[in-house]
Amino acid sequence: MSLECVIGVDLGGTKLLAGVVDGEWGVHHRVHRAVHGLTQHELLDAAVEAVEEARAATTHEVVAVGFGIPCLIDQRRGMATMAVNLPLRDVPFRDLMAERLGLPVEVDNDANVAALAEWRAGAARGASDVVLLTIGTGIGGGLVLGGAPYRGAIGAGAELGHITIDVDGPPCQGHCPNNGCLETLASGTALAREGRRIAGEQPDSALGRALADGRAVTGALITELAHDGDTAAVEALTLIGTRLGVGIASYLNIFNPDVVVIGGGVIAAGELLLAPARAEAVRRALPTMSRHARIVPAQFGVEAGLVGAAALAFEGARGAVH
Amino acid sequence: MSLECVIGVDLGGTKLLAGVVDGEWGVHHRVHRAVHGLTQHELLDAAVEAVEEARAATTHEVVAVGFGIPCLIDQRRGMATMAVNLPLRDVPFRDLMAERLGLPVEVDNDANVAALAEWRAGAARGASDVVLLTIGTGIGGGLVLGGAPYRGAIGAGAELGHITIDVDGPPCQGHCPNNGCLETLASGTALAREGRRIAGEQPDSALGRALADGRAVTGALITELAHDGDTAAVEALTLIGTRLGVGIASYLNIFNPDVVVIGGGVIAAGELLLAPARAEAVRRALPTMSRHARIVPAQFGVEAGLVGAAALAFEGARGAVH
Repeated sequence: MSLECVIGVDLGGTKLLAGVVDGEWGVHHRVHRAVHGLTQHELLDAAVEAVEEARAATTHEVVAVGFGIPCLIDQRRGMATMAVNLPLRDVPFRDLMAERLGLPVEVDNDANVAALAEWRAGAARGASDVVLLTIGTGIGGGLVLGGAPYRGAIGAGAELGHITIDVDGPPCQGHCPNNGCLETLASGTALAREGRRIAGEQPDSALGRALADGRAVTGALITELAHDGDTAAVEALTLIGTRLGVGIASYLNIFNPDVVVIGGGVIAAGELLLAPARAEAVRRALPTMSRHARIVPAQFGVEAGLVGAAALAFEGARGAVH
Repeated sequence: MSLECVIGVDLGGTKLLAGVVDGEWGVHHRVHRAVHGLTQHELLDAAVEAVEEARAATTHEVVAVGFGIPCLIDQRRGMATMAVNLPLRDVPFRDLMAERLGLPVEVDNDANVAALAEWRAGAARGASDVVLLTIGTGIGGGLVLGGAPYRGAIGAGAELGHITIDVDGPPCQGHCPNNGCLETLASGTALAREGRRIAGEQPDSALGRALADGRAVTGALITELAHDGDTAAVEALTLIGTRLGVGIASYLNIFNPDVVVIGGGVIAAGELLLAPARAEAVRRALPTMSRHARIVPAQFGVEAGLVGAAALAFEGARGAVH
């Protein structure tokens, strides 16, 4: 373990995970907190306490703290401007935390830090141009372009789930006014919706019987049954993977990346999702682009946010963020 | 006029335009050549002769030459790898021209150099994050991200016309295997196609009468009649502008840019195209993105390629390209 460490904090909608991370990406002294239903004040207190607890547990010097938050970030001011699942709105998060912790603090959204984790220490290590898609309840995105994280003019960019792939498609959710977004058609939520439809159409399949038995048709159930070989469940994953491939093809043509990394809960389906996604992306993308790029699963699972937040803290300590 | 100049060359599918460009973006000693139907050998000779002619005409020192070519470029080797309308395939263009001209040479595709022109000297001057779309026969794209031109891992990126906006849309053209591309639905070619359809449906409109009189329903004719107030022609431009807005919304969400610049021949329609594009982009994009970005017409018209190629040569002379 190297002498200088950072603390990475993954501040999710329901739970907080913090840990001390060393220069070789080893994670130590994990701290968990439930944060569901907290007020903004309580949430900030919980974050401070978790960092202090991790800091007290290590004998090494902690030089910076990084936070990954599912929130639009205005990097010019380190502001958490808009979150769907957290009580954060127009909070000067970076400066507020830096003052309370007495340490340099960096903050970025959860998908951006996941991209950092994969680029610095995971599936996209050594690449200069990386597109990351996290497929969960929604679809998040992170970019590394020309060997540096890309966040847009005010740090709100890389909302890669919110591209139109079907001009007359169904409306998107929350603060997105668009129609036919990739997120609407290829997220974990879409997988559950299409899974329920297919279950209804194929009552004799394992998925159909699960629906008839009153079980909740979730992405996790569909993935489990698909791994067991149920054709209805495989059909649902193939449909979502194929739609995901439509979006990936666009990103290949836009970015000419080295690597496209697919993470998030839905990637538990592995090749059942990735194989149709890859096939559709190759069918649609310009051959120059698809020949160059690898399309691979994320290496980090539940700790992507923590490790990425730590990577962000290291970048900040090296002066590479602002 | 500053002492050090460069020569910019816009090498199009039918004609070549070269000129000496000074440090304040003044264009001098223009040279035109018709290049339609030439062999690869003749084309390279014509380019060399045009540069030599411009160089002989100036009394100032020419320090570098830049080329903009409608071609996929592999920047790692300065290769022109694949062009639809020029006899260039796997040509080591940069090194070959540098040897024949005895000057440093830079090469990039026509849309990338147009983006450079707008960023360095035009509508996006001073911005750090710029998306350029050139709407002509096809749709080309150029990107400036984080204050630098972005070209992708092997320099083939920013193919911004080739994103899917309609998953089940019509097939794209040429070397693009995709369906429902922005280019297929919102290019000048699409404008002419939709204009012909609307002309047939509205025989009493000026556009309908033009069709009945046997006139070719081109983008130029539609634009002319729309400027005169013909509702059928306005309808065609509104449809194409609206579809363009679908693509712009995706680019706002992906890049969080300062400016989106719309160039190419079709922008002769001005606000008849831009107003519906802007309205649709604002309706669809995340509000954080659309509030920040300007959507504006290109400042450079037919000389965008020449000025951009010169900007590329200046970047190269400063060591900023590779």
